[in-house]
Amino acid sequence: MTTQAPIRVAVTGAAGNIGYALLWRIASGDCFGSNQPVILQLLEIPPGMQRLEGVIMELRDSAFPLVHDIVGTDNAEVAFNEADAIFLVGSRPRTKDMDRSDLVAANGPIFVGQGKAIDAVASRKVKVITVGNPCNTNALIASANAPSIPPQQFTAMTRLDQNRAVGQMAERAGVPASEVQDVFIWGNHANTMYPDPSMATVGGQSATEVFDEEWLQGEFLNTVSTRGKAIIMARGASSAASAASAAVDHMRDWWQGSAGRIVSVALPSEGWYGVPEGIVFSFPCRCEGGEVTVVEGLTVDTFAQAKIDENVAALLGEREAVSDLL
Amino acid sequence: MTTQAPIRVAVTGAAGNIGYALLWRIASGDCFGSNQPVILQLLEIPPGMQRLEGVIMELRDSAFPLVHDIVGTDNAEVAFNEADAIFLVGSRPRTKDMDRSDLVAANGPIFVGQGKAIDAVASRKVKVITVGNPCNTNALIASANAPSIPPQQFTAMTRLDQNRAVGQMAERAGVPASEVQDVFIWGNHANTMYPDPSMATVGGQSATEVFDEEWLQGEFLNTVSTRGKAIIMARGASSAASAASAAVDHMRDWWQGSAGRIVSVALPSEGWYGVPEGIVFSFPCRCEGGEVTVVEGLTVDTFAQAKIDENVAALLGEREAVSDLL
Repeated sequence: MTTQAPIRVAVTGAAGNIGYALLWRIASGDCFGSNQPVILQLLEIPPGMQRLEGVIMELRDSAFPLVHDIVGTDNAEVAFNEADAIFLVGSRPRTKDMDRSDLVAANGPIFVGQGKAIDAVASRKVKVITVGNPCNTNALIASANAPSIPPQQFTAMTRLDQNRAVGQMAERAGVPASEVQDVFIWGNHANTMYPDPSMATVGGQSATEVFDEEWLQGEFLNTVSTRGKAIIMARGASSAASAASAAVDHMRDWWQGSAGRIVSVALPSEGWYGVPEGIVFSFPCRCEGGEVTVVEGLTVDTFAQAKIDENVAALLGEREAVSDLL
Repeated sequence: MTTQAPIRVAVTGAAGNIGYALLWRIASGDCFGSNQPVILQLLEIPPGMQRLEGVIMELRDSAFPLVHDIVGTDNAEVAFNEADAIFLVGSRPRTKDMDRSDLVAANGPIFVGQGKAIDAVASRKVKVITVGNPCNTNALIASANAPSIPPQQFTAMTRLDQNRAVGQMAERAGVPASEVQDVFIWGNHANTMYPDPSMATVGGQSATEVFDEEWLQGEFLNTVSTRGKAIIMARGASSAASAASAAVDHMRDWWQGSAGRIVSVALPSEGWYGVPEGIVFSFPCRCEGGEVTVVEGLTVDTFAQAKIDENVAALLGEREAVSDLL
């Protein structure tokens, strides 16, 4: 029997495909540990409430020993009440006629409201991961609207890009994913993101020795940056279980530590590596004691620097598009 | 780092909704333990192969440390090759114009072929759980076509019914599911199944004292037996994540032990409780050292006996309908 007090875990877009994949991973203990009870606080928009009811029925039907209670609501202040961890998964999906700036504009108001609700009712120590796209800028908007919560508690997910990079390196080298370590992502969770191989190892050997530069800067980079589209083509649906799995990895490492490994976390820049303050940017990080720390002092080569600059420009552009919401 | 040799885990219907929910639970270590590497061997029918390719891409994109390899195939002998554990998830779904005997007849040939393939290539110690419906009789067909594998290694899943019963008792009593123990299922995974409260405890108290007989034999029984339909009504889709979760629970307990708890496993009757040999029937069981043992000597009251008789009759009828496949 468990004796720890339950923590409150909020998930938005809980009845969507990523939410559906995520909830069972959280409920089973994969994220917060096999001895940590949870109270699930699930948010949906009103048209999603009936489907959420079905999801909650299925969660109850799973009889998880760690799940102490389940709340379903369309009110953000109910969902975020005293929340210790929040997964901001729900967002308006991109439709055919939208470009990226339309997507940024369409999602902005959602994250204004959620930021204000977090500010009003969440635990002062809440850890927030933003999964709904454009996740870096959505995290920025939420943080800006939650002035009483330190900005570093608002993060965005580039772990899916990292995991995709690990998967590509493992497949290329013919080794299990466990043999690939310390590849990380710079920048925006978008096609411009850069999977940096400079610190990565494959079976203990430097990735830049195992793979040639042509592959790393060509096919590897291209495959990782366009992977979302390739999944849609093959599966007939966008990444769901892999996105949920990356969210679990991100939050688990933040909560329980990354055991010395470098992991990718997008968080509000404090000027590291010349990235201007005021944008949410993915950096190489380590997690320990519930804190995320940017790994400073790494060498950035010309190729990487150009990619970082490209991501900075893109994120400054996104910020400009939502400046009235900040 | 893990040092155990990987085991081979086969899943059929791997690109379906239950398969999609199941694979990430297995890959994360929820089923076989957090130190047990796995090789995933995934079977689909030819029209599902492209979708399966997308599922495998997402599995690689999840960079699970425990996943040593992933095989996708439409050939059962490839999927079951040296398999240590097999989840028979894929089956023909019931369509509007089919009654249960049509469903039994439509699925029979699938499980003949899969039984023969298991007989030919799987590990002699393989543990098989049948999830695809009608799962009891499908397990019987597979076993009958795998004469070199002991019948007790072919089981069918009633754990979803058990978990639903636990969830209903927990909700009624206002306690977490962890407080409900030892409720179990008799019979067929069908509307006739019987969730037996006689050994169950709720917060340490006997369930038959906590709840009145009217609720146990009325609303409780009715809710559990019609839960599948209620999920479809609410969610607009049949149970997937909860079914996958029950499959994980069933196989995990079989593999790692049930820690003294009574759990529901449908397996070929050896005549326990007067249930005739030659049908796959859910009994109260305990799991230890990789073995499932039926808990014998429990008192069966008149109400339960009538339910057991009803399930025996139904399963004898199903067997009759597929007698040419056995």
